[in-house]
Amino acid sequence: MLNDTIAAISTPLGEGGIAVIRISGDEAVKAADRIFYGKDKLIEASTHTVHYGYIKDPQTLASVDEVLVTVMKAPRSFTTEDVVEISCHGGFISVKKVLDLLLEQQEIRLAEPGEFTKRAFLNGRIDLSQAEAVIDLIRAKSDRAYQVAMKQSEGTLSKRIKLLRHDLVELMAHIEVNIDYPEHDVEEMTNAFIKDKCTAAMEKIEELLNTARQGKILREGIVTAIIGKPNVGKSSLLNTLAQENRAIVTDIPGTTRDVIEEFVNVNGIPLKLLDTAGIRETSDLVEQIGVQKSKSALAEADLILLVFNGADTLEPDEMTIIEQLKDRQTIIIVNKLDLEQRIELNILKEHFPAERIVMMSLLEEQGITDLEKAIASIFFSGQVESNDLTYVSNARHISLLKKSKSTLEEAFTATVNFVPIDMVQIDIRNAWEHLGEIIGDSVGDSLIDQIFSQFCLGK
Amino acid sequence: MLNDTIAAISTPLGEGGIAVIRISGDEAVKAADRIFYGKDKLIEASTHTVHYGYIKDPQTLASVDEVLVTVMKAPRSFTTEDVVEISCHGGFISVKKVLDLLLEQQEIRLAEPGEFTKRAFLNGRIDLSQAEAVIDLIRAKSDRAYQVAMKQSEGTLSKRIKLLRHDLVELMAHIEVNIDYPEHDVEEMTNAFIKDKCTAAMEKIEELLNTARQGKILREGIVTAIIGKPNVGKSSLLNTLAQENRAIVTDIPGTTRDVIEEFVNVNGIPLKLLDTAGIRETSDLVEQIGVQKSKSALAEADLILLVFNGADTLEPDEMTIIEQLKDRQTIIIVNKLDLEQRIELNILKEHFPAERIVMMSLLEEQGITDLEKAIASIFFSGQVESNDLTYVSNARHISLLKKSKSTLEEAFTATVNFVPIDMVQIDIRNAWEHLGEIIGDSVGDSLIDQIFSQFCLGK
Repeated sequence: MLNDTIAAISTPLGEGGIAVIRISGDEAVKAADRIFYGKDKLIEASTHTVHYGYIKDPQTLASVDEVLVTVMKAPRSFTTEDVVEISCHGGFISVKKVLDLLLEQQEIRLAEPGEFTKRAFLNGRIDLSQAEAVIDLIRAKSDRAYQVAMKQSEGTLSKRIKLLRHDLVELMAHIEVNIDYPEHDVEEMTNAFIKDKCTAAMEKIEELLNTARQGKILREGIVTAIIGKPNVGKSSLLNTLAQENRAIVTDIPGTTRDVIEEFVNVNGIPLKLLDTAGIRETSDLVEQIGVQKSKSALAEADLILLVFNGADTLEPDEMTIIEQLKDRQTIIIVNKLDLEQRIELNILKEHFPAERIVMMSLLEEQGITDLEKAIASIFFSGQVESNDLTYVSNARHISLLKKSKSTLEEAFTATVNFVPIDMVQIDIRNAWEHLGEIIGDSVGDSLIDQIFSQFCLGK
Repeated sequence: MLNDTIAAISTPLGEGGIAVIRISGDEAVKAADRIFYGKDKLIEASTHTVHYGYIKDPQTLASVDEVLVTVMKAPRSFTTEDVVEISCHGGFISVKKVLDLLLEQQEIRLAEPGEFTKRAFLNGRIDLSQAEAVIDLIRAKSDRAYQVAMKQSEGTLSKRIKLLRHDLVELMAHIEVNIDYPEHDVEEMTNAFIKDKCTAAMEKIEELLNTARQGKILREGIVTAIIGKPNVGKSSLLNTLAQENRAIVTDIPGTTRDVIEEFVNVNGIPLKLLDTAGIRETSDLVEQIGVQKSKSALAEADLILLVFNGADTLEPDEMTIIEQLKDRQTIIIVNKLDLEQRIELNILKEHFPAERIVMMSLLEEQGITDLEKAIASIFFSGQVESNDLTYVSNARHISLLKKSKSTLEEAFTATVNFVPIDMVQIDIRNAWEHLGEIIGDSVGDSLIDQIFSQFCLGK
């Protein structure tokens, strides 16, 4: 249990109906009580009850806000500490004044970003991968990314990691017995056992790593560049994708569209569009292909949507770009299917597989489903969709899984080469520790600080 | 009691720790219960209790979010109806998904902006001026504006209006008796009584109207233009005002400064700066004085801060603007006091009173307090500060008070001219009704709709 009591505004700042200030720690209830004036004393309140009243400046007794105060007593709270939530009128002044009245008290300090979640972790309510899922939940850009984060926050990844670690602990115990009482076993049997167990663990880790590409895309979006000559329909394509697929966030009345300006969701797969503004201004990436900026945009892209005007023949600079992109993840869009077609489809088909060439008329809204299918096929290329939605999406997790797997590979090779068994034991222990770092079983303070500092204030 | 049940997101949209969805109406608890999976059934919950659990899609049983749900039963709630608040993880997807699950139910519809507050009004928990104060609370740009709105939300203005109306009802009753039983009274006595009462009421209304100028400024800010030739120190002045006085909102960590970019608070008096961006780019309003845009900025301003370089002599175009502004609310700022002074102070003193001329060195931070005093003296010019913080700030209220006062003036004149007493009665009743409109006692549906449509969603 950490000793001090922290407070912060937990809702986004802006004009709104409600703003919430969260307080956590031993002094939370007393601190709120000092500025709360209602029928009930918070200090006498039962856990999980709500109290109506006014926040007043205890010096002047001037009303600061009309509020609802929720009391949640340890350990039944987000942080497992005493938690008080003060629900104020929205806007800037009210929350700021209430927060100030709390922070004027010696016992309270402003929470650091992520500190409430950090306490939930340090106090053992959730493990590190669950805590990391909380920020993914908040930042999720698509439904599917959200579902993946939700699963992780419920502990599905942790469960798999724990099972893996359990297997490795058993293996270590077996080896330990062999080291301490070599007479109990014959070395070959132990070696065979180690090889089996290592292989099984590596396979399970590989399974998780197989979800990583998709997981990372779900979390961060497929970095996508739309390119093509002027007037081939780049901005129509962008608008069509946006209108059809950006509904998740923007059909909440009052949402600013700008917030996810660069993201469109295609069947739950988020595309992060590069240089969207440029496309809207119909700037010409093909003509500027020599320019550094366009080059780096192309280099950065996971997916390229290369748009042609089907009513025109291919021009030399288009041929150049076809050559350049033939080995990249590219979808060819032949637009303006409503006009008479002059484009040399045979040339396109020489360079790209048929399923990557989509015939469209953006004007007549033809071919949109084909495009969405093509995008999905790239996303799921050669891979089965994880049916329990356990995707490894966090770069830290991916790196630890890879480390763990390569350490197990070393253990395997060592065993094959009859390296002394206590050396093998060290590799296996390292693999076990790397897995432990994912769920926060063996991590240092500085890593913890770094992870939680990515959170927003008040979480 | 309105019959349908409404729901909306009540916190500002954006990345944050908590987002709250509010539901109000007869079906609120049942609707929440259909998607809530926890230890407790909400339908059996006591009022003012909080329940931990998951929101799940009842069709697929997929978890949508881990939540805290607060149940507040009628009549002890914001709207006086059954109210449920679902506290989700912040971000976009979670709240949107939970809201969708609610809106999929036939019994629930999306709330209109301000509809929760509207119900609190229609159900009689607060009157119209209190409801209007809620939006002022949320939008308040300074501490003082917030305090004024807080007082109004507590009903201080309503109380005064009600006392006034009570006096007028007594007067009407008195007249009624005289009309019905003329033998009970002599006409002169009644006339004297009407004149006294009308005068008293008019004085009280005038008292309220006297706070209107300040009230409106507190609510909307003093529209202020900073003008002067290039390099006289306009942007230094802006930065100084901003740094010294913008603290109220912007020292909340994580606040975007842009939100109140145009507002600076000088001792609680909000200045709404015109063309702030232009000032930062040190565009020259003096040189452009012939340009339409500059003219209209000047015309619009309540206060002009006219900045000179004290180390230079006055130039012809500066003389022109001095002439133009001598009858406006202008504060003359003579900057660069740290350099040798060449400016013709006598010319400035011929055109502006001494207390409106402030000597400053923005470089050496001299004269800032003098400037703040000068601004405050304009704000409180010739008027005593309302000590109970009852300021009339709302344009609708001001207009109704003026109407009421002029109707009472007509009654007074009619009485003086011995107009039949039942005609006078009509005027007094009109005055009484105008006052009633302030607190919502006699207002039409369309006005109510118009008032509440200014609210943000979820309030």
